[in-house]
Amino acid sequence: MARNHKRKAIPKSAVFKHRRLTPPGTVPGTLVADPDSPAPNYWILQYGPEGFTENPEADLADVIGCINAYPITWINVEGLGDVEAIQQIGKAFKLHPLALEDVVSVHQRPKVDAYKDVLYVVARMPHPEAIPATEQVSFFLGSNFILTFQEGTPGDCFEPVRKRIREDSGRLRNGKPAYLLYALLDTLVDQFFPQLEFYADLLQNIEDRIISHRYAPVSTELYTIRRHLLLMHRIVRPLQDVIGALMREPLNVFDEETRFYLRDVFDHTTQLMDMLETYKDLAGHLMDMAASSASARMNEIMRFLTVMSSIFIPLTFIAGVYGMNFKLENSPLNMPELSWYYGYPLSLLMMAAVAIGLMLFFRHKGWLGVPESERWK
Amino acid sequence: MARNHKRKAIPKSAVFKHRRLTPPGTVPGTLVADPDSPAPNYWILQYGPEGFTENPEADLADVIGCINAYPITWINVEGLGDVEAIQQIGKAFKLHPLALEDVVSVHQRPKVDAYKDVLYVVARMPHPEAIPATEQVSFFLGSNFILTFQEGTPGDCFEPVRKRIREDSGRLRNGKPAYLLYALLDTLVDQFFPQLEFYADLLQNIEDRIISHRYAPVSTELYTIRRHLLLMHRIVRPLQDVIGALMREPLNVFDEETRFYLRDVFDHTTQLMDMLETYKDLAGHLMDMAASSASARMNEIMRFLTVMSSIFIPLTFIAGVYGMNFKLENSPLNMPELSWYYGYPLSLLMMAAVAIGLMLFFRHKGWLGVPESERWK
Amino acid sequence: MARNHKRKAIPKSAVFKHRRLTPPGTVPGTLVADPDSPAPNYWILQYGPEGFTENPEADLADVIGCINAYPITWINVEGLGDVEAIQQIGKAFKLHPLALEDVVSVHQRPKVDAYKDVLYVVARMPHPEAIPATEQVSFFLGSNFILTFQEGTPGDCFEPVRKRIREDSGRLRNGKPAYLLYALLDTLVDQFFPQLEFYADLLQNIEDRIISHRYAPVSTELYTIRRHLLLMHRIVRPLQDVIGALMREPLNVFDEETRFYLRDVFDHTTQLMDMLETYKDLAGHLMDMAASSASARMNEIMRFLTVMSSIFIPLTFIAGVYGMNFKLENSPLNMPELSWYYGYPLSLLMMAAVAIGLMLFFRHKGWLGVPESERWK
Amino acid sequence: MARNHKRKAIPKSAVFKHRRLTPPGTVPGTLVADPDSPAPNYWILQYGPEGFTENPEADLADVIGCINAYPITWINVEGLGDVEAIQQIGKAFKLHPLALEDVVSVHQRPKVDAYKDVLYVVARMPHPEAIPATEQVSFFLGSNFILTFQEGTPGDCFEPVRKRIREDSGRLRNGKPAYLLYALLDTLVDQFFPQLEFYADLLQNIEDRIISHRYAPVSTELYTIRRHLLLMHRIVRPLQDVIGALMREPLNVFDEETRFYLRDVFDHTTQLMDMLETYKDLAGHLMDMAASSASARMNEIMRFLTVMSSIFIPLTFIAGVYGMNFKLENSPLNMPELSWYYGYPLSLLMMAAVAIGLMLFFRHKGWLGVPESERWK
Amino acid sequence: MARNHKRKAIPKSAVFKHRRLTPPGTVPGTLVADPDSPAPNYWILQYGPEGFTENPEADLADVIGCINAYPITWINVEGLGDVEAIQQIGKAFKLHPLALEDVVSVHQRPKVDAYKDVLYVVARMPHPEAIPATEQVSFFLGSNFILTFQEGTPGDCFEPVRKRIREDSGRLRNGKPAYLLYALLDTLVDQFFPQLEFYADLLQNIEDRIISHRYAPVSTELYTIRRHLLLMHRIVRPLQDVIGALMREPLNVFDEETRFYLRDVFDHTTQLMDMLETYKDLAGHLMDMAASSASARMNEIMRFLTVMSSIFIPLTFIAGVYGMNFKLENSPLNMPELSWYYGYPLSLLMMAAVAIGLMLFFRHKGWLGVPESERWK
Repeated sequence: MARNHKRKAIPKSAVFKHRRLTPPGTVPGTLVADPDSPAPNYWILQYGPEGFTENPEADLADVIGCINAYPITWINVEGLGDVEAIQQIGKAFKLHPLALEDVVSVHQRPKVDAYKDVLYVVARMPHPEAIPATEQVSFFLGSNFILTFQEGTPGDCFEPVRKRIREDSGRLRNGKPAYLLYALLDTLVDQFFPQLEFYADLLQNIEDRIISHRYAPVSTELYTIRRHLLLMHRIVRPLQDVIGALMREPLNVFDEETRFYLRDVFDHTTQLMDMLETYKDLAGHLMDMAASSASARMNEIMRFLTVMSSIFIPLTFIAGVYGMNFKLENSPLNMPELSWYYGYPLSLLMMAAVAIGLMLFFRHKGWLGVPESERWK
Repeated sequence: MARNHKRKAIPKSAVFKHRRLTPPGTVPGTLVADPDSPAPNYWILQYGPEGFTENPEADLADVIGCINAYPITWINVEGLGDVEAIQQIGKAFKLHPLALEDVVSVHQRPKVDAYKDVLYVVARMPHPEAIPATEQVSFFLGSNFILTFQEGTPGDCFEPVRKRIREDSGRLRNGKPAYLLYALLDTLVDQFFPQLEFYADLLQNIEDRIISHRYAPVSTELYTIRRHLLLMHRIVRPLQDVIGALMREPLNVFDEETRFYLRDVFDHTTQLMDMLETYKDLAGHLMDMAASSASARMNEIMRFLTVMSSIFIPLTFIAGVYGMNFKLENSPLNMPELSWYYGYPLSLLMMAAVAIGLMLFFRHKGWLGVPESERWK
Repeated sequence: MARNHKRKAIPKSAVFKHRRLTPPGTVPGTLVADPDSPAPNYWILQYGPEGFTENPEADLADVIGCINAYPITWINVEGLGDVEAIQQIGKAFKLHPLALEDVVSVHQRPKVDAYKDVLYVVARMPHPEAIPATEQVSFFLGSNFILTFQEGTPGDCFEPVRKRIREDSGRLRNGKPAYLLYALLDTLVDQFFPQLEFYADLLQNIEDRIISHRYAPVSTELYTIRRHLLLMHRIVRPLQDVIGALMREPLNVFDEETRFYLRDVFDHTTQLMDMLETYKDLAGHLMDMAASSASARMNEIMRFLTVMSSIFIPLTFIAGVYGMNFKLENSPLNMPELSWYYGYPLSLLMMAAVAIGLMLFFRHKGWLGVPESERWK
Repeated sequence: MARNHKRKAIPKSAVFKHRRLTPPGTVPGTLVADPDSPAPNYWILQYGPEGFTENPEADLADVIGCINAYPITWINVEGLGDVEAIQQIGKAFKLHPLALEDVVSVHQRPKVDAYKDVLYVVARMPHPEAIPATEQVSFFLGSNFILTFQEGTPGDCFEPVRKRIREDSGRLRNGKPAYLLYALLDTLVDQFFPQLEFYADLLQNIEDRIISHRYAPVSTELYTIRRHLLLMHRIVRPLQDVIGALMREPLNVFDEETRFYLRDVFDHTTQLMDMLETYKDLAGHLMDMAASSASARMNEIMRFLTVMSSIFIPLTFIAGVYGMNFKLENSPLNMPELSWYYGYPLSLLMMAAVAIGLMLFFRHKGWLGVPESERWK
Repeated sequence: MARNHKRKAIPKSAVFKHRRLTPPGTVPGTLVADPDSPAPNYWILQYGPEGFTENPEADLADVIGCINAYPITWINVEGLGDVEAIQQIGKAFKLHPLALEDVVSVHQRPKVDAYKDVLYVVARMPHPEAIPATEQVSFFLGSNFILTFQEGTPGDCFEPVRKRIREDSGRLRNGKPAYLLYALLDTLVDQFFPQLEFYADLLQNIEDRIISHRYAPVSTELYTIRRHLLLMHRIVRPLQDVIGALMREPLNVFDEETRFYLRDVFDHTTQLMDMLETYKDLAGHLMDMAASSASARMNEIMRFLTVMSSIFIPLTFIAGVYGMNFKLENSPLNMPELSWYYGYPLSLLMMAAVAIGLMLFFRHKGWLGVPESERWK
């Protein structure tokens, strides 16, 4: 738990910074690079049943010329800073300009677009290290290649897939590119679970704090969690549609067996949605409980003040009366009590009577708080 | 009621602990045992119209070799701690690796998957003793066998079905495995009713407490109940879909008569959903009423304080004035009241007049509380 | 209105007491009598175009032997205490065991099930006298008979139908059993209107009280009403589906003309749903208004306290200062005001100045309350 | 605006008074006149391309005999007090008894029923003068006539249609009865816009008051508006369905061109629904803002009290201490301060120090209110 | 950010001023000019693959005579003040009167109507300069022309399209009018993004303020934002339907390639809806957090008052007691403490004891506030 709290470096503008780079009215298909986007790094991984070759630091020429050397070529482009290069790759692999435009404008809603020879999928990938960060990944699936474009945060969640290709484990080396696409999407979807578990931990922690009456304020925390769940919902909801669309995809890009595996991924997105809905509801219920708890506590304090004040106010008044300076010497009616033999004890008795009377009244009204023994019955 | 409250040992992490055992990117079909999962216990129950044989403590070899001895074989595996054994069973009964993966990762959403020869159903079973606990049960329905895998909490809710098989009562002994599947699911679904009734009792109890103005705080309790209803909703909702899918199942696994009985189970899930929705709404309304009640009570206390303070504050001020030490000897203007003959009685009269005036004002404003006789008209 | 309030004997456990009589895992079709259920009373009413015969206190033998004497036989069974008798009737009229099980487990969701020769309808009937009570009614529609089973509360809402049969008014005597079923359902649905009007009266009454500022607390009442509306919603919603299903019923049980009348009943259920939704929304809005009203009133009281306190607190302080016993004789600096000629009048003036200054400040701030003349502009 | 507020004579029981006149179980088709319903007034308007004739005060014989004199006959019946006459008209024009029953039970949900020769439409008409009132209008569309029944509030919104018939403007005189039905429904739907604008004005006014901090309570007003919007929603929602059903009406009562115009009316109902939804949401948001505003204001007042009290309470205590009557003569320890040379000035200094210290503390805590210069940054 | 806040001149009546110009019952197709509507300005832009001609200040005769000079003619009418001219244009281009009526009544819901030769689209265009303002734009798409009518606010968002036509960039000059319609709608939809980003900035700013505890009230601001988001929702929701309807448009007005581009616009509207929903939810959550924050702060202040009062009230009472003027000379029982040797120090000690006791009690109760070191654990 403690470890998780260390990681709570949530980027503040995750929801609101959604700037479009192209002004309204731009020619469709215009590519504008985000000035903050890093220069691209090319990672070519080619394989077939017999073997594989890997070039994690290729250059643009390698990318354009590498195809057909192996049955399947996977080119991963990390960093979208070089619009020129992206356009050259687009030309080489016959990618549609509208799809390329979506690649560089990095706040796409996850979707799948079927072009003539190429299937285009956009999704957001949670980062395996920096918990709440996500980056856009675009997948182009051709007959013998897969092109993936990542925003450029160093590192990704595809390392296990690379390892499986290198080790010839599983059906990956013998599969078609569609199976590789499945494997990548499966990994990407599964990467959301640690993120959700992170928020589940936070919620659990808040719940514990409220129930154990540690009264640190939780509304800001809960707001931040709700906001991030909202954001994740906005990513996972269409992602589920994407997987569903791939399952029902009419062009037979996916064979029977792979569709089968896609159904498994779809089940995972359903589970994610289920958990997201549950956590959103729970966050709302926690908000209710926190408000109710804070108000119960406030009421308890106020009740104490009321009882204190209500008891001492008349006593102080009585003391004030006998503090008045009426002159007994000018009139026998002027506070004769002051010179009675039992004046002072009687006044104290009167005060005690008033106090006890009020206490009994409060007790009768049930304002002295619920006795421990009567609680929870 | 009292008995129920004894059972309120609600496992705290029921909602939030949803850990996946396999990291993202694992090869699909990899089985990872939960380290807390107990070693499996095998219970073989074989029967046909003519008789039955039962081995409640079989070993793995029995399980793999037992098939075909009777028309129908039901193997119940309790405890998922031995991944090796599960894989051997899977091989022997030709179960799909993805289904086996779901068997051991014990937080599946209820679902039904049709494989070639085998129908796979996942559900969660409420425990018949420990009220709010549930465990995952996987059903594999083959042509002449049913395999059930339970998480491993000792005991299950299938005992009445076993008894019916042993006693040859009803149509169970003459039915097909699909009818046994129906009987198991029927029992499992009916087991949710005592759970719901448990929460209904709690809600009823809270309602009684709020209405009878016993002011113990209820927000934490209501939160816990809402949380558990949410959790049950997340189980029953897809379970209803599972039963519905079985009813409309196109492969004719279920004959006409059994579909008929499934419709009955489906009605029960509908009723469960109905009750869940109602209880969720009621819990929300109770929250409203509790808040409103607490605030009404607070207001009553505050009103008392206000009236007390407002009456005594000016009186105390008057007393304070006549407690000032101005020297009458230095000037006839310095508090001549103090030496008047009727000074003290007059000052008391003035105080009484102020107090009565304020009381009348409050009464006019209706701040002295609603007289009992005017209530509820 | 007053008459209605007399009837407010709302059974407390209407929502929560939903006990199932059979434990999970019972053989389907097992009948278990509710121990509180009264012994059955049989009422046979047989009729045709030419005449009718009626036996309001028949015995079981009459019931089983009476059929075919007239074109249409309507047997009404009131009270489900004799499971034996119900099973005999079931055998005589060839009713399905699952349907009989639903007859005796009296918390069914309204539904319609088509069996081979018999149409089975379950609904809940509002009681014509005891306003918020309902009881389960089961209808079996055969080719020449209708069997109705009621839970057993004495009296029902079908008396007008019986009267119409006896008086040969309308098309009832010449119709088929399906028309009788329509007439019974029509009466049953219409019986919900007085119930809803009862709650409408309560809501109207609460609204009047809140608007006229009679401050009796309403949250408990509103909660009870919302709870009963929820309960009624849970009955009427599926009842509407039942009527809709009968309208679209494919077996031609209902002729064209009767479907026509069913559409009328369907319109009534739609109207009921409409009203239920409206009243539920209104109850929520009333809750809002009551909370807002209570808080406005509290604020007014608190404002008064604030103004009182804030004015008198500094005055009392000043009086306190001049009540200090510093000895002028020891030092000319020790409260020389006390011996000034105009000391006392000046101190009173100072107090008045402070009080007036504060009053002006509060008036400027608008804390003295909104003057009557400026309201509602 | 001011003019509108004059009109605010909202009938109180608009939502709750929904009494059915016939008891449950009445023979279908029974007409029962509302005892408050006025005697009918018949207005016959007959026209064709060549001319028109109008009899605004016809009698029952005129109504029954008038048909066929002109291509199109429009009979308007205002007032439903004479059940006999309605039954005679029903017989003469072959209207179905169920439809006639709906005519006199004046709280129908808007709907359209197709009978053999006659199309029956029920709707509610907003009154053009008395803003929030509506009355039920029934339309019977035959091959050469239209019959309209109004509840009987004097005046209706159809005057512009009559004028267009008299003036031979537009396509009305040459159209078929279906076009007249369109024209009447169009007028009726458009009549809802002034009603909605009335509520929009009220909401705008409330918004202005809240934003400008005129603190008259608004919750009752907002409740009333929400209630009326709910009521209007309940009328317009099914009215939209009615228009939609007429557009898709399969019997070719409406020709292509008229369907075209109906689409325009349908757009208007969509716009009404849009506005209703928006206003309902806004009323909810205004409720939130008002609550938030009232609570902010209360907090400001309470903060002032807190600061006042907290500063003066210790000062008064100090003054109280030096008002104690300990006798210096009995012991040099008994309040020697009272006889110090600088005793009084020092005590005043101490008080000032405490006050200033507390002020600084409050300022540090930010409890002295937000300085004007820092707001809204 | 600062720049945006300058622009916050939100027109107040955006939601509520929705006046219809024609009274109910007006002949359909009647054009009534809004008296505030400016006189029209005609801008003719004609082009084809070979070239273009532009007349930004044409007169009515130009408009009516210009067609057919180039393959495509785009006439933009800005200002709807001249009903006569609009009717002449309608006659010249064969526009349906109902469509023309919609052109001049400027609060249409976005929609698409297919007339015989002409496709009619209504939408609302955000103004590129004045952020929250929108104006109605009507598009008529004929075989060789596009007519656009704008409400008349000077300036529009179509300038980039004009530039692209002039510069012969992209496929615009070679496309059909349908492609021009796509380009205009694309620009219009994209123009909503800066508006949404404006509100996102405001929300971000409010969020920052609440989290950093700058306590300026935010409820009015949040209300205004929610209101505008509601308004934008009411525009974008049907706009999405319009684009969807154009995509599925059955008359083949759009060729395959253009439909492709329309899908891109549809994706943008989906993204807009997504963002609108998110911002609406966030605004609600911010409202919650602000309320919770304000109440937490109030509670902190109240707690301080309670502690202050509760400590000093008994102390002041004690001081008051010893300020009573009982005469020791009349009785040895009359406040002998006053003449004790250690009387004064003992009384001070007693006060200190009471104060410390209460402090310890409050500390035990946790009412002294959460120590900094225990927060957020």
